[in-house]
Parts: sequence; structure tokens; C-alpha cells
Amino acid sequence: MDKPTFPRNTWYVACTPDEIQDKPLGRMVCGERLVIYRGPDRQVVALEDFCPHRGAPLSLGRVCEGRLVCGYHGLEMGCDGKTVAMPGQRVRGFPAVRAFPAVERHGFIWVWPGEAALADADRIPALDWAHHPEWAYGGGLYHIGCDYRLMIDNLMDLTHETYVHSTSIGQREIDETPCQTRVEGDEVITSRFMHGIQPPPFWQMALRMNGLPDDQPVDRWQICHFTPPSHVLIEVGVALAGRGGYEAPAEAKASSIVVDFITPETETSIWYFWGMARHFKPRDPTLTDSIRQGQGAIFAEDREMLERQQQNLLRWPERALLMLNIDAGGVQARKILDRLIQAEQATP
Amino acid sequence: MDKPTFPRNTWYVACTPDEIQDKPLGRMVCGERLVIYRGPDRQVVALEDFCPHRGAPLSLGRVCEGRLVCGYHGLEMGCDGKTVAMPGQRVRGFPAVRAFPAVERHGFIWVWPGEAALADADRIPALDWAHHPEWAYGGGLYHIGCDYRLMIDNLMDLTHETYVHSTSIGQREIDETPCQTRVEGDEVITSRFMHGIQPPPFWQMALRMNGLPDDQPVDRWQICHFTPPSHVLIEVGVALAGRGGYEAPAEAKASSIVVDFITPETETSIWYFWGMARHFKPRDPTLTDSIRQGQGAIFAEDREMLERQQQNLLRWPERALLMLNIDAGGVQARKILDRLIQAEQATP
Amino acid sequence: MDKPTFPRNTWYVACTPDEIQDKPLGRMVCGERLVIYRGPDRQVVALEDFCPHRGAPLSLGRVCEGRLVCGYHGLEMGCDGKTVAMPGQRVRGFPAVRAFPAVERHGFIWVWPGEAALADADRIPALDWAHHPEWAYGGGLYHIGCDYRLMIDNLMDLTHETYVHSTSIGQREIDETPCQTRVEGDEVITSRFMHGIQPPPFWQMALRMNGLPDDQPVDRWQICHFTPPSHVLIEVGVALAGRGGYEAPAEAKASSIVVDFITPETETSIWYFWGMARHFKPRDPTLTDSIRQGQGAIFAEDREMLERQQQNLLRWPERALLMLNIDAGGVQARKILDRLIQAEQATP
Repeated sequence: MDKPTFPRNTWYVACTPDEIQDKPLGRMVCGERLVIYRGPDRQVVALEDFCPHRGAPLSLGRVCEGRLVCGYHGLEMGCDGKTVAMPGQRVRGFPAVRAFPAVERHGFIWVWPGEAALADADRIPALDWAHHPEWAYGGGLYHIGCDYRLMIDNLMDLTHETYVHSTSIGQREIDETPCQTRVEGDEVITSRFMHGIQPPPFWQMALRMNGLPDDQPVDRWQICHFTPPSHVLIEVGVALAGRGGYEAPAEAKASSIVVDFITPETETSIWYFWGMARHFKPRDPTLTDSIRQGQGAIFAEDREMLERQQQNLLRWPERALLMLNIDAGGVQARKILDRLIQAEQATP
Repeated sequence: MDKPTFPRNTWYVACTPDEIQDKPLGRMVCGERLVIYRGPDRQVVALEDFCPHRGAPLSLGRVCEGRLVCGYHGLEMGCDGKTVAMPGQRVRGFPAVRAFPAVERHGFIWVWPGEAALADADRIPALDWAHHPEWAYGGGLYHIGCDYRLMIDNLMDLTHETYVHSTSIGQREIDETPCQTRVEGDEVITSRFMHGIQPPPFWQMALRMNGLPDDQPVDRWQICHFTPPSHVLIEVGVALAGRGGYEAPAEAKASSIVVDFITPETETSIWYFWGMARHFKPRDPTLTDSIRQGQGAIFAEDREMLERQQQNLLRWPERALLMLNIDAGGVQARKILDRLIQAEQATP
Repeated sequence: MDKPTFPRNTWYVACTPDEIQDKPLGRMVCGERLVIYRGPDRQVVALEDFCPHRGAPLSLGRVCEGRLVCGYHGLEMGCDGKTVAMPGQRVRGFPAVRAFPAVERHGFIWVWPGEAALADADRIPALDWAHHPEWAYGGGLYHIGCDYRLMIDNLMDLTHETYVHSTSIGQREIDETPCQTRVEGDEVITSRFMHGIQPPPFWQMALRMNGLPDDQPVDRWQICHFTPPSHVLIEVGVALAGRGGYEAPAEAKASSIVVDFITPETETSIWYFWGMARHFKPRDPTLTDSIRQGQGAIFAEDREMLERQQQNLLRWPERALLMLNIDAGGVQARKILDRLIQAEQATP
């Protein structure tokens, strides 16, 4: 890797709380092999997944009263990467392993793979819906073999729904309706508003769940918000036609936020945390489950496309991709990322 | 790859018509990633499998009235590699992708991976049996991890049948009967004639199918025809002993042509189109199927041998292989190939 | 590979007799691709797995009256690596392949991958139990993706039993009892003696099999013997507490030898021959089988640890591993190996 492709001094989602419920988790984030677990106060800890004794992965061990115990010879590791104890040994001189800033917030575990001194938990994005009783969230995790920026491109240009997801959320009108992209500081917003169209299958379901008719024309919106390094939150919804669209009163619409946190594993692979925060029937876990399954099936349709696109780009690295109006969201996001990476490189 | 191992200015079989019946096919031929499909007049088209918009593989798309529609964002590609349309876009300035000469003939799709201006459909080999009502054809496709020339060697030296295919078409007498190799222009012919032998299981079946006794001595022949780049057609058959052998009248013999088109995928892997054109009971599709299954099982026996031979040659690249009389067919074929490759290299 | 990591002028276990019972075996040992089979007098033969005719692996062939017949075109290979015959060919001038010294002894096939002239069968270790009627042996073979020295480290430091094998042979007291390591010539011995402890599940079973109570305190011992290149024999056992421990009379104890022959396949993978020679109920094949299954399950627990430790060490090659007292066995073994490798390098 000649030039970094992702910033490091920033927060990435590394895992979800349920992944570290019983045992430590081994996960590569931004090329760093991490072990993630809960320390003595149940706080999240992220360390290099390397036992200083003989190099065993600490993630094969277990957590015992908040100490990570190596599964090979019992070295006990502290939250700061320093060995706490080992049977029959004085551990004072043991070399430490690197500890990474880690924070649990909004139902996710966030890790800062860069310079620890710069980590600032206030820079974790605010996610109001994660704490609001009228909202419910469900989601999942996919591993995909592509550069994380291809996933950003995908999410900032929803015309692909017409082709990749034609049987669920895609419809001709997405393609036919121009989108608008604007940049506000480090945020990129691409929006599209469709008027008087038939709702596709997913939104018919959502309308019914909201007690609304599913066979009448609706106004539909998609507002994609990119913030660095790779968070894409998409406001989506439909309102009965002529009731104000995006601004329609709650009783005339169904709306959600598509939640996407994209974490580079390597230069050409990602951990993709996807989900949906919905603003209707929040206390219906069966609905949550049903939506998660539906969304999981839809998002799986992107995987082969992204992985084979990646292979094509590796095969033809010299070919410039087009940057059409529909690509503006991804293009602007990359500009911001390039700026952040360059700033990191400039700092010694 | 320092020196090319296969010629490019020539026709290779890329696929069969049934592979592109419903949807475009992605296939690598001679290191080129191709998408192959049927255009507006059902003619075959072969393009680089790369969408000029964002590099998605076009083979994940679909064909709509002869236009190839990218499955990611709907770009419509024409047969010449130029973009025809895209929703909401002016496409005039879009870069073209490479189009490869492609022809459907004799029940196969042929592609010319080299210089398009030199492509001449008259150089596709004539296959009379493919158009003759007294002949029937059945075949299949294997992917094998070996240099295409190892497959040519295999087919031009049938002594291997005694060892690799001992339970079906192999028999001691193949080994014991010397073969003759001659070169006629760009064709190499290796032939072997065995007299008064017992027919092996495959030929017993064929004799029965021709209404002939299967328990009497026969004369058996194998005449392997190599033509560049990698077509091997093998006349095979048996006749009741003493009735003239290869020249025996039709009612005293059973004969076929083993059909082999070998297409390099990379330097060390091939698409192997194998089949049998038989000159008996042509209107019996059950027999076609039964022969295809039997041949498929026999030819699968070669696969492990070829792949592990390839690995050995990569491990010991400096070792010279022997060139015995039985190897003459393959040796002569390589001489012709070397000459063709050198001629290509000499042309700027 | 800059510097060799294993000695070559030494004996390694290459396979077991049952692996070459019916047909030749292809196996890589110390980076050499071997074919191993039984020659005319049933003696073991190890040759390069490369047919001088066209490079096919000889291990895909068969043995016919002690001659190895290539499965591709029937070349017949002799025990010395020289071609004996080939149908229709004069073979005098065929190039020979390399023959490796090979000996069958103690129920294993031993191969010398280095300079053949230096091979001395007297240097194969003496294994008295292999020939003693009061002992029985059972074992198996695992392929593991790690440097062979990581496996030696594993076996010379049994504190890992407490963590990796906690449900079978591990127990807290192993960890709590210091071990002693001493070097005697080229042998390294690490021993640990535990007194008045509860026997773990495996040893409870062994006590019962010896007609002894399984619920009383025992003395337990572990005496690991390393000899180069990579043989680790571990005397293990328990005696009823206070009856003399290791020196207790036969009727008060249960004891075995854990047998480990570790053969490098490559720099980072091994063939691991594991087993147990037991000194009780030797004529009970059901017990042999039951112990083999139990041991197989236990030793499989090491595999993921060793393979992921190897990956960690490749990822962080510059990190020095700690060398604690518990690691002394492995550390001393590596010193002996380094000396042997250096001596080989010094000899031209």
C-alpha cells in the first residue's frame, strides 16, 4: 500500500455488544489485529491481539473478572496492554501491547485505530434515534471483499436500487428522478424526491404497518448523509401523495433511517454494519426481525457486485471511473476523505 | 509472464450457445475478462467485462432487446463496446470498452482475443460432422488448472489411456502398438492402428449399438489431428477384424470423432470443451446422453493428473521433459505454436 | 527462506506403514516432494515425486511387483530413482530422479531428506516400548500450519494443558508447580512432579483400567524428552499418593509415554505424528482405540492455537518472544537445532 486509503485518526464501528457478550472477539480493523472484550467495569477494551509471552492470539483466551487470560499459557492482560500476572512469573518487565481507544455508544463498539492521544469520544456521531422510545433498530453485519469507498459510492448513489434491488425497493422512478448533492462542512448530502408514484413492495408493507393504504400514490424521499470516515445514514420514507412529502405529518407517512457503518478491514475488504432505525411500531420485535431479514436479503444482493467490481478495478487500475451527476455523493465523500488522509500524512 | 505461451491472433472456443441462452456470460479467455451475449440480431458479441461507468462487470447485468444493460446503474452497452444510453445521462463522451471478434459456428461460440483487424472467420476450422444428419454430437466443459499445452500433449499421446483410463477405453495393446506422427503444414497427425484385438468396454457398447457382435476381435484405430491453436480432433473406431479396419464398410464398424477445443484461461488454466461426434444412431438422444456421461467420467480422470503435473513443472521449472516417439505429436504441435507466437511477437 | 529453519541431515518420520499399504504415497517432507512406497522386497523407498518422462507425480501411479509404474504413460521406476523400463522405449539415457534414504523401524517410515551419503540408520532413535509385549501403541497424524518449532515449544511446556486442555488432562496444579529443565548432550529434559493432587479425567480412566481407585490423591509426573530434530517423548503418569511417585511399583501406578514426531512439510507447516505408548492393558485393542480417540480430540485443541500463533508471528516478525522458565525446554531445543543447522551450513 503506497498511499493510505483510509484515515486512522477517527472512530470506526468495530463490533456490536452481542459479539463480545461471552468471550473476547478477534477482529481486524484498518489492518490492525484487535482483540475486543469487556474489562473489569464492563467497559470495552481493544488491544493488539498478540500475547507478549509467545505471540498467541489473545482472542482465543477468555475474560476472567475483567482480565483477559491468554488461552495458551495463562498470561493475564490488563486493559492498558500491560501484563497483570502470569502463574509463577514476575511480569514487571514484560513488553506491553498496544491499546486502542474504544467506546461503547449508541449500541455499537467504536474503536480509534490511529494516534490514541487524539481520540475524542465527542467526535462519535450523535444518533438520536438510538435513544428515542418511538424508534426501533435492527441490523446485521456483512464481510465484503471491497475497498470501503466502493460501499460509500454504492450508498450515496441509490439509482442502483432500480437494477440491483428491482424486486424490493427498486423502481423505475428512482432512475428517472434527478438527485441533488450538496456539501456542508464534512458532510455530504444527496437527496432525491419522487412525487405521486406507486410504492414498491417494502414501502407497501411499511404503509400497512402504519395503518395506511398501500395501493395509493405516494411521495417518496431518499436523503443520504455521508460523514467521515464512512458513515452513511439515509433518511427514507413515503407519504400519501399530496400530504407534504418529507414534511407530511406523522399519521400520513412511514419513514426510517437506513444505517450504514463501513469499517475497513484491509485496503480491499470491509466489515459492513447495516441496519434500519424505523419510526413506526417501535415496540414490535417481530416486525424488527422481519425487517432485518428483508434488509439482509436486499443488502446481500450488493455483495457480488461490489466484490467483482473490486476485482475489475484491481485488474484495470489505470482506468479512470466516470463521475456523473449520480456519482456526486461518492465523489464528494472521497474528496473529504482525501483531505483527511492528507492531513494525517502531513502530521509527523 | 515473460514470453507468451499462447497465440492471440487466432480463434478459440469461448463458450457454447446454451451458456448465453438466458443471460450474459462472464468468462476469461487468454487472460482477457470477457462478457459474451447475443446482440439485437441474436448475433454473438464479446466485450471487455467492464462497465465504463464504475467498473462493474457487465456480465452481472442482463440483455434487453440486444442491448447489454449494466446490473449496477443501468448503463446500456452496444455491440461495439460503445455506450448507447444511460438513464438521465448524455453518453457521447463515455470511453468505449474493447470489442472482440466473435462468431457462432458449428455449435460453438468462437472468439479472437488478438488484433481485431486480423480476424478472419474463414480460419475457423470446418467441422463437417456438425452439419451432417448421420452424425450426432454431445459434449461438456471442464475447467482444469494446467497450461493448455499439457492438454494437447495428453490428447496427442493416447498411450495414457492404458494407464489413466484402464477401465473404459484403455487396453494394453495401445501401449504395445507404435504410433506414427507426421506434420502437414500446420497440422500434426499422430495415428495408431491395432489389429485383431479385443474391444474395450466403451467400444463393446458402440458395437452393440451398431448391431454388431461385441465379443469378436476387432481392428482399432486412433488418428489424432492437431490444428492450431489448440484443436484436437481424434478419429477413433473399431471394425470387425479383417474387414478393412479404418477403411471397412460402414456396416462392419463403429466410429466417432473425439472433439477437443482447449482454450487458455490463464497461463496455467484452461477451459476444456470436450465431446464426441458419432457416426451411428444419430437420432438417439438417450445414447448421446449416455455417451456424454461416460466420456465426462473418463475425461475427469485426466484432471488430477494434469493439475498435479502442472504443479510439478512449476516446482522444477529447469527440468527438461523427455521427447520420446510417443510424445512426437505434442512436440510437433508446440513447434507450430512457438512459430505462431514468434510471428506475432515480430509484428509490432 | 533466507536461513534454513530445520536440519536436513537427520531422520524424520515421513509416514506410517498403513499409509503405503496399497499404493504409493505422495508427501512433502522438508520441502521435498516425495513418493514413498514398498519396493521388490517390501522395503521402503522414497524418491522424488517426479516422472522423468513428462513430470507427472509418480505417486498417482501404482506399484507392480515392487516397481513404481507411472500412472500417466507407464514408465517403470526402480528403487534407486533410475528408470527400469517403459513400453516400447529404450530407457538407458533417461535422467534419474533423486532417491532418499528410507528405513522402516519401530512402526514408522523414516526418511533422511539431506545428504544421502551421511545417512546412518543407527541414528534413528531407539524406542524400546515399540517392541515390548507389555506396551501397546496407538496414534494418528495431523497436518498443522505452523513452524515445527512452535510444536516443540508446545510439547516442552505443558503448562498449556491447564488452558488448552482444561477438560481432559489440564489442571491448576500443572501451572502452580515449577518445572526443571536440563540439557544432556543433544537431549533436553523438562520435568514436573506434582504431589497429592486429584487426578484429572484422563488419569482417572487410566487408574480404573489398572484396577486402581480413581478418587484418591495421586502423585503425577511429566518428563518431556526432546531429541533432535523434533522428537518429543513425554513420560507421563500418576501413582497413588505416597507410594513413590514416578518410582512407585507397577501395581500402584498408571503410566504412558506420549509420542510426538514432528516433520516439517514447509517452513510453516508440519506433519504431526502423535500417539501414546501405554504400559497397561496392552492386549486391549478397544482401549487402544478409545485412548487414540481421546488423545486425538485433545491434540486437535492445539491446532487452532498453533496456526494462529504462526500467523501472528508472520505478521509481527520483529517481535522477540519471551523466554521464561517454563519456556526453557523449547529454548534449549532451539539452541541445539541452531547448532545443527549451522554445522550443516558450514559443510560445503
